[in-house]
Amino acid sequence: MLVFDVSEYKSRVARTKAAMAARGIEVLLVASPANQFWLTGYDGWSFYTPQMVVVAADRDEPVWIGRKMDAAGARFTAYLAPENVVPYPDDYVGSDTLHPMDFVADRLLDMGLGGCVLGVETDDYYYTARWDHILRRRLPEATFEDAFLLVNRCRMVKSDRELTYMRQAGQIAAAAQQAAYEAAAPGVRQCDVMAEVYRVTTAGLPGFGGTFPCKPPNAMVGEMCSAPHLSWTDAPLAEGEIFYIELGGIRHRYHSPLSRCIHLGPPPDALRRLANGIAEGLQAVLDTVRAGATCADLAAAWQRVARSHGVEKDSRIGYPVGIGYPPTWGELTASIRSGDDTVLEPGMTFHCIPAIWREHDGVVISETFAVTETGAEIFADSPRTLFVKS
Amino acid sequence: MLVFDVSEYKSRVARTKAAMAARGIEVLLVASPANQFWLTGYDGWSFYTPQMVVVAADRDEPVWIGRKMDAAGARFTAYLAPENVVPYPDDYVGSDTLHPMDFVADRLLDMGLGGCVLGVETDDYYYTARWDHILRRRLPEATFEDAFLLVNRCRMVKSDRELTYMRQAGQIAAAAQQAAYEAAAPGVRQCDVMAEVYRVTTAGLPGFGGTFPCKPPNAMVGEMCSAPHLSWTDAPLAEGEIFYIELGGIRHRYHSPLSRCIHLGPPPDALRRLANGIAEGLQAVLDTVRAGATCADLAAAWQRVARSHGVEKDSRIGYPVGIGYPPTWGELTASIRSGDDTVLEPGMTFHCIPAIWREHDGVVISETFAVTETGAEIFADSPRTLFVKS
Repeated sequence: MLVFDVSEYKSRVARTKAAMAARGIEVLLVASPANQFWLTGYDGWSFYTPQMVVVAADRDEPVWIGRKMDAAGARFTAYLAPENVVPYPDDYVGSDTLHPMDFVADRLLDMGLGGCVLGVETDDYYYTARWDHILRRRLPEATFEDAFLLVNRCRMVKSDRELTYMRQAGQIAAAAQQAAYEAAAPGVRQCDVMAEVYRVTTAGLPGFGGTFPCKPPNAMVGEMCSAPHLSWTDAPLAEGEIFYIELGGIRHRYHSPLSRCIHLGPPPDALRRLANGIAEGLQAVLDTVRAGATCADLAAAWQRVARSHGVEKDSRIGYPVGIGYPPTWGELTASIRSGDDTVLEPGMTFHCIPAIWREHDGVVISETFAVTETGAEIFADSPRTLFVKS
Repeated sequence: MLVFDVSEYKSRVARTKAAMAARGIEVLLVASPANQFWLTGYDGWSFYTPQMVVVAADRDEPVWIGRKMDAAGARFTAYLAPENVVPYPDDYVGSDTLHPMDFVADRLLDMGLGGCVLGVETDDYYYTARWDHILRRRLPEATFEDAFLLVNRCRMVKSDRELTYMRQAGQIAAAAQQAAYEAAAPGVRQCDVMAEVYRVTTAGLPGFGGTFPCKPPNAMVGEMCSAPHLSWTDAPLAEGEIFYIELGGIRHRYHSPLSRCIHLGPPPDALRRLANGIAEGLQAVLDTVRAGATCADLAAAWQRVARSHGVEKDSRIGYPVGIGYPPTWGELTASIRSGDDTVLEPGMTFHCIPAIWREHDGVVISETFAVTETGAEIFADSPRTLFVKS
């Protein structure tokens, strides 16, 4: 059930160890499920109980520590040898007296790692304050270093196989947007349109299946498009409404987001002009993409076009994307905005989403792309325009 | 767009303030998106950037602090007055130098709350170690108290309206299991069966729509049923396989989980006996439910039946359920297992899932129910048996 060759996992671990060495980190505690997946292949929805991957500089394989019932899942999804899958008993779950981080600390002590320089992902969603308190108390001889985003940065440049999955995800995303377009009509409930989206993202395409997204589509109608992260209701659509859909196609946890808007009936001129301005600005960004350009360069390309259209946007216009576990498919390592001097490298993947949210509506057109030596490879094939359903 | 009356939010805030007072907590910092939703109604997929709800004993309404672009979402979904929606600028997002918790600390100081007894949800998924470090450093006059699960415990007894949503979610869950049963057949890809599940959970029923789940179904086929939290593939189903599906119906973020297995063709006798044993044990649990019983009483009822069938299970058989935000629909407050003396009260809601995972397969039958004075109200109407598709 491995979705990558063992050699690929080994090269990821090697890349991570090199990044650890550069920071003087001897043992890395990986709390992020996305980073755990990337490093080991482990893939279960089990991270609602504490789960840790330990990467020690002087050990060949990482060690997965998790709930006993989930150790079986490691057999199917992780490349690790059985002795590197370490389960804790169920009485550590939801207990007032036993915490899985006590178990993790005990194992680190058993492994002779209690006096090491320990990297911890201090601002990862899954590394809570209590985890940190317990580990520091139980490992008084360790030196703690902040290793937030260390693995995320290693993930930025994708392998050929990763790019293949993201291309497939992009094809699924385009099919899902097309399904929404076909389903949307006056009188149809918003939830029934989104049911078609989910049907397509889950089924995938005839040649390769889909799966679940790490986050739902942001999908709003009418006035609610003025807020970027709301969701649909069961109200029926009406003529003259705009349906804003930011969704992701997914393949083996790799997400290719794609955003489009559907207007029911002819759109007002101002709205059409705004959509054209966004499309033009997005094109300018894509035309700027190449190895060696920076995130700030892309933002500047957007700004030039946006300014010419009188469009103002005070938030970033994109971010690196790839493996998605809740709550995000973003890699958290960079932002497409002025001041971000991240240098693009071939194989990096971004979601560029220069959406505009206004007082009473909002418009989005986005693309997910890979950086190549000379440009951008766009994963979805979907008209870059305001969809009009008449 | 509020899905509860304002009076209901006010009573929730009052209940929370009483729990704070009992613990000597003057200001509660609520990091959990589920708790934020319950207290204010705020409902956006925006919690991938830091977001906080502040409940101060001496202020009428909570204060929502979040990303500027998401303040618009609060207008649509939260009952709060505009002055209690406090946005931070986008340069706090994904920054090396600015962190939203600095902004939160500044606002607490502005509000004159820097010297208070502060409750923080130390082990909530969204309260990271770094959040805690920054708040403690920036608020040296404050006294920090661990308030993990304080709000979760207030959420345990549901209102009439909450129960209505969970009943609707239960109906959707039953329809989704039925859709899986109808779609499953030899030669059909697993992902195509799950596409039908997602179509139904998203669309809902004619009288009320569905929405997205906070976690995907756990859905495994064949040997992979030996692990509880994996997901489907795009392999075609084959005669003789078992398809294990734990899914949730959802209505306004309230989840009613429901689990069933589908066997393609006649099941082996041993498997059928195991399923019958689980169903009988589950029935014994449901027969034990009433106000005043404890979680341990329910576990004992299961144990008696399980033992008589020679079934061993070393993990808990259920937990309180309700509002779901990723990564879980569980309320984290209690477990149905021996030693848990949580006393059942009318309106509490649980997912009882005495699943058995064995070396080469697994079987599940589960129900979500509300506690009543005299028994259990079950939300879904679905045969409590191993489904056989022939």
